[in-house]
Amino acid sequence: MLINGKAGNLISIRDRGLLYGDGVFRTLRAAGGQALHWPLHYSKLQHDCAALCIDCPDYARLSDELDGLLTEHPDAVFKIIVTRGLSGRGYAPSPFSSPSHLWDVFPMPDYPENYALQGVVLALCELRLSHQPRLAGIKHLNRLENVLAAAEIAASGDSVAEGLLLDADDKVIEGTRSNVFLISGGRLITPDLSRCGVAGVTRDRVMACAGEIGIAVEVRDIGLDEMFAADAVFLSNSVIGIWPVSRFGQRQWTDFDYALQIRAGLAGGTKG
Amino acid sequence: MLINGKAGNLISIRDRGLLYGDGVFRTLRAAGGQALHWPLHYSKLQHDCAALCIDCPDYARLSDELDGLLTEHPDAVFKIIVTRGLSGRGYAPSPFSSPSHLWDVFPMPDYPENYALQGVVLALCELRLSHQPRLAGIKHLNRLENVLAAAEIAASGDSVAEGLLLDADDKVIEGTRSNVFLISGGRLITPDLSRCGVAGVTRDRVMACAGEIGIAVEVRDIGLDEMFAADAVFLSNSVIGIWPVSRFGQRQWTDFDYALQIRAGLAGGTKG
Repeated sequence: MLINGKAGNLISIRDRGLLYGDGVFRTLRAAGGQALHWPLHYSKLQHDCAALCIDCPDYARLSDELDGLLTEHPDAVFKIIVTRGLSGRGYAPSPFSSPSHLWDVFPMPDYPENYALQGVVLALCELRLSHQPRLAGIKHLNRLENVLAAAEIAASGDSVAEGLLLDADDKVIEGTRSNVFLISGGRLITPDLSRCGVAGVTRDRVMACAGEIGIAVEVRDIGLDEMFAADAVFLSNSVIGIWPVSRFGQRQWTDFDYALQIRAGLAGGTKG
Repeated sequence: MLINGKAGNLISIRDRGLLYGDGVFRTLRAAGGQALHWPLHYSKLQHDCAALCIDCPDYARLSDELDGLLTEHPDAVFKIIVTRGLSGRGYAPSPFSSPSHLWDVFPMPDYPENYALQGVVLALCELRLSHQPRLAGIKHLNRLENVLAAAEIAASGDSVAEGLLLDADDKVIEGTRSNVFLISGGRLITPDLSRCGVAGVTRDRVMACAGEIGIAVEVRDIGLDEMFAADAVFLSNSVIGIWPVSRFGQRQWTDFDYALQIRAGLAGGTKG
């Protein structure tokens, strides 16, 4: 673990990341000593920092730190957090505060291999995501909705791999830790994230990949009816890659061709 | 500063308070070696912990720690944070995690004395609070909305003391760090906080105090029109006490009798 470039695993209790969730993060995978799609993750980190008016540490600095960590952990999951830094009491950011950035490293989770090949069970969360256009799409540290939703799914037993989150209007938004995609009439459809949700790096890559192999892409509101009627559904994030959905409520899917095609496309794509 | 009862000012970067804002807090005032209304603050802390299924440290333990801090800091602002504790990667709370609790101490802020007697300028924030019934009323660590709103107000200059937050339906909810009250036709009206907002200890005390001196209390939705039409408006929190509002947009108020009456009532009330 690195804190502002130095080895350590502790931060100040006056860091605004703790006090207010005033920061952003990204999670990425490393394989064979390579941090997969690091430039894309950095680009999202920079975008999200800008949305909160936090100065993002520069690319060269974070890349150097990451390179150092990769020599010790060539196959792992990395998490980078950038917070607005130290604060006195009070919500207003100080013009003098200097951002903190932290790296943490985790072993690759041991998901069953058949998740990627034979699909996973998705369950509907009761919690509805709230609409906040000022924070939508951003991977910020205010993640209590995800915590409550993940707790629901954990309580529903081991057979459920992910929870589906709707917004207050009952539109499909995302998984608790993944983005969601439908295949319908040969088109790839993924929810509009302008009111809530987190826009993942792999979501962008899936849309780009679909475009490259000639699948039309739509980003728009999706109702549950449309989800049940879809020809296929799959999930994405930077750690799991692509998981086809085999069951959601009473609806079952057995044809995972599109998901496997996208998965193959992503695997063949640039590591940039 | 105390962390789980021990002197310190650092926490693990794997604490879920930092990772997800997965925790709650309270801010209270001490005067003359007495923590004002500590039992009420503890009661809210316990309520908010329960809402997130976090085990709240018990009253005797926190009271002992607070007593120790009060001998060193008899006149100060205290902040207590309770988080869900350490976590591996992943949003779902572990059944094995043990909560962290932290105390921090700050000097009393030096607000101008005339704020309490001659009122403050309140300005409307552009940011709208999102609706999340599962988190409404709770003083949790997901406070990015307050941060963004406070940043708006800080940018508007020193003459504005507080920002007013509406929800997505343009209903009046609260100040960025205070609860809001209207006096209208001799009644005290304060916003319903079942969809968003933070229910402060002083808000409860104001309502109880109004009841005791024979002012009818209404908790319900309030539109901006009603706010402009009110006979008086005032703000409350545990550090500022009561601040009458002297101006909000083009609307000015000069009669602060109700606010001063409530202020006197609170000052004369129990310290419990």
